[in-house]
Amino acid sequence: MKIYGDRISGNCLKVKWVCDLLALPYAWIDVDVVKGETRSADFLALNPWGQVPTVVFDDGRTLAQSNAIIRYLARDSHLIPADAFTAAQMDGWLFWEQYSHEPYIAVRRFHLTYLGKPADALDPKLETRGYAALDIMERRLSEARHLAGDALSLADIALLAYTRLAHEGGFDLTRYDGIRRWIAQSEAELRLAPAH
Amino acid sequence: MKIYGDRISGNCLKVKWVCDLLALPYAWIDVDVVKGETRSADFLALNPWGQVPTVVFDDGRTLAQSNAIIRYLARDSHLIPADAFTAAQMDGWLFWEQYSHEPYIAVRRFHLTYLGKPADALDPKLETRGYAALDIMERRLSEARHLAGDALSLADIALLAYTRLAHEGGFDLTRYDGIRRWIAQSEAELRLAPAH
Repeated sequence: MKIYGDRISGNCLKVKWVCDLLALPYAWIDVDVVKGETRSADFLALNPWGQVPTVVFDDGRTLAQSNAIIRYLARDSHLIPADAFTAAQMDGWLFWEQYSHEPYIAVRRFHLTYLGKPADALDPKLETRGYAALDIMERRLSEARHLAGDALSLADIALLAYTRLAHEGGFDLTRYDGIRRWIAQSEAELRLAPAH
Repeated sequence: MKIYGDRISGNCLKVKWVCDLLALPYAWIDVDVVKGETRSADFLALNPWGQVPTVVFDDGRTLAQSNAIIRYLARDSHLIPADAFTAAQMDGWLFWEQYSHEPYIAVRRFHLTYLGKPADALDPKLETRGYAALDIMERRLSEARHLAGDALSLADIALLAYTRLAHEGGFDLTRYDGIRRWIAQSEAELRLAPAH
């Protein structure tokens, strides 16, 4: 399996982390988002959506969308709760991540840290909605160790990707005790060096 | 099962359509998004995410996020492909819908049709990215009858919700022959009256 990804992208790292945790072999192929390599003709031939991560299996089949990829790679593993309702709660977090978290927290980080824009040039919604997303996570994580059920699942992996880098988007996690405990615990579960 | 939803919301109708197709009994409880009823204290006690649809099962458990709900309700049904890879492609469309389609096509419709804003007051990205999403759908639907695999799946149901109402967001589907054929076919499969 080949993973086409950019190491600055949390969406891409989700796929790497799941492969590492489940000991799935892969080759990583760097695609530079900032340089526009996802918009090249070669890349669009691989994935018309023009997005990383994109996975190419040994038989040539391709799969896109980070959360769909990790859901497929982790099928029948302990990273998807065996109970159907708990798995549905996990899915809820995965969809919420793409709609209500990534477009604010990851996008603000990209503008600030990778495009070098000043904070006052950014849409203020990126900050307010990013904090609204963190508030929702804190509500859960102040009273539970994991987002879905009582063990590490894809929900934790998907949300960890950009939450641990929220400071690069200008978000201050000081008042989020539950989130900070969960980041440290999840980084340990994934055997990652602390991002902050 | 109770479905808390707003009938103007495609996200809510996805849940209704899946229940109707699979003959799952439910009571529909109207929640008016435009009037802000998803932000009331009563509703937030039910779903801290403050979003419809929200489903409450007879045992009191709740579930949110339209695509997570339909994935749960349709588990083990013909609406999720039996082949794991085809199901993953379906999931790809579900995540893509929430990230790259709904935030433009549904949001532009909401501003134009429900908030009554003039088109020139809207962020131009809503239009360009909405058409970019339609281009991607057309690429698939000009050569295939369904989005994932060769039968109706949750991918068609999820994407149908706002694509059939794209004209209410000011999108002209005239040049999208594949999409228009697929809308007519999907509406027939779901036994819906044509939206356009």
